[in-house]
Amino acid sequence: MQPARMTLVLGGARSGKSSYAERLIEACPAPWTYLATAQAWDDEMRERITLHRSRRSGDWIARDVPMDLPRAITEAREPVLVDCLTLWLTNVMLAEADLSAASAALIEACTAARGPLVLVGNEVGLGIVPDNALGRRFRDEAGRLHQRLAAQADRVVFMVAGLPMIVKPSSENPGNPS
Amino acid sequence: MQPARMTLVLGGARSGKSSYAERLIEACPAPWTYLATAQAWDDEMRERITLHRSRRSGDWIARDVPMDLPRAITEAREPVLVDCLTLWLTNVMLAEADLSAASAALIEACTAARGPLVLVGNEVGLGIVPDNALGRRFRDEAGRLHQRLAAQADRVVFMVAGLPMIVKPSSENPGNPS
Amino acid sequence: MQPARMTLVLGGARSGKSSYAERLIEACPAPWTYLATAQAWDDEMRERITLHRSRRSGDWIARDVPMDLPRAITEAREPVLVDCLTLWLTNVMLAEADLSAASAALIEACTAARGPLVLVGNEVGLGIVPDNALGRRFRDEAGRLHQRLAAQADRVVFMVAGLPMIVKPSSENPGNPS
Repeated sequence: MQPARMTLVLGGARSGKSSYAERLIEACPAPWTYLATAQAWDDEMRERITLHRSRRSGDWIARDVPMDLPRAITEAREPVLVDCLTLWLTNVMLAEADLSAASAALIEACTAARGPLVLVGNEVGLGIVPDNALGRRFRDEAGRLHQRLAAQADRVVFMVAGLPMIVKPSSENPGNPS
Repeated sequence: MQPARMTLVLGGARSGKSSYAERLIEACPAPWTYLATAQAWDDEMRERITLHRSRRSGDWIARDVPMDLPRAITEAREPVLVDCLTLWLTNVMLAEADLSAASAALIEACTAARGPLVLVGNEVGLGIVPDNALGRRFRDEAGRLHQRLAAQADRVVFMVAGLPMIVKPSSENPGNPS
Repeated sequence: MQPARMTLVLGGARSGKSSYAERLIEACPAPWTYLATAQAWDDEMRERITLHRSRRSGDWIARDVPMDLPRAITEAREPVLVDCLTLWLTNVMLAEADLSAASAALIEACTAARGPLVLVGNEVGLGIVPDNALGRRFRDEAGRLHQRLAAQADRVVFMVAGLPMIVKPSSENPGNPS
């Protein structure tokens, strides 16, 4: 059984999103493309990147794409894992790039991708309201991006403690609630 | 198919709660009552209120009820959307009103409502412990309120990226776990 | 019908985790063991502990185990409720004990337990990134611990507004995603 054409894997910190997403892609014939959006700003992040890398086999072709994620998705000829949307959004916002254009380009690239395409994103909107405007804006933009991608995705999962809860497809049709 | 008599729509920031709740009510014959609890304290909030308003058609009868939500629910003769519980709770707490009495009145009004009644609330308890006492108290009160309303509701959904996960009714009977 | 041998109850603050967990254990013949990990550092915590205690009947045998939770689980001869993992983890981290050894001992004790064993934990990873290193480390460790316990558990639930969403067992096999 093949993975869905486009899967969105959401969840909190350390909820097992990346491992689950890797297993989804590794169910396809190798090789696989890994699009990494993390930038090693500090030791903490460098350590996380190294840990993620050490877990992946040699069949992964890794590319660092802190900003130009839409093009990389379009160019990929293998099953693609994007890890993760949250850091890409952070990079776009910190660079003060045109977020609206960047998001539109990302949605378009994902929609046009042949797949399998698996996108990982951090759910960040379930705590109390952040006390700074940047935090509030970031979680608004992340929520909007996730909603738009989820609308296009064939499959959306919400990770809890390493386990996937299926959000889409569901028994409920959100376009026609009753 | 009619909406449930009482539906509780929970979810994080920008999870699509309001849009989903509006679609639920708009599945009923117009007109519909929109009970808005937001107060325009600052530009950020004013912008959100305007955005929400611009999305709704002319069949909505909007009322601003920052505090007296129980009475407005009781008086409504049309399908009612309450958006949102979180801001109402904030208003009650900031006014140093009797929270216990206000909550009891709200539960009673919701229980007595003919429906359809759709209540939107922000889930705020899934981040790390807030570093200030007010934040901790707020998320405790919000959690308690949601639990009491969920116990009365015919239907509870948890929104993820614009998609509803059905929490109630479920295959599991929480009063008789096994 | 008997509770599962090992159940992990996750959820946010005031999501009804403890009440639900107590009902699960109380479905077994009394007596029951309550392993409390809370330490009364301040009035706020003292009040929560008293509230939790007042709710439980005399058939509960309560033990305070801020640190030596693995041994207490191993020694218990009755159905066991652990409330909660989050405070135990906090205690281990604040004592600067060997977290890796403590976690391994806990996993081993849970795996060896005859059950029924119900473990309660706070989901803390769904807000924006904490602005201090300790907060980030704590939510990483909590997430890792939950993942490891969830892998061993027969049943995992995610509480929303007092209602359980079943995470495991699910229709999806996470070890063989497709």
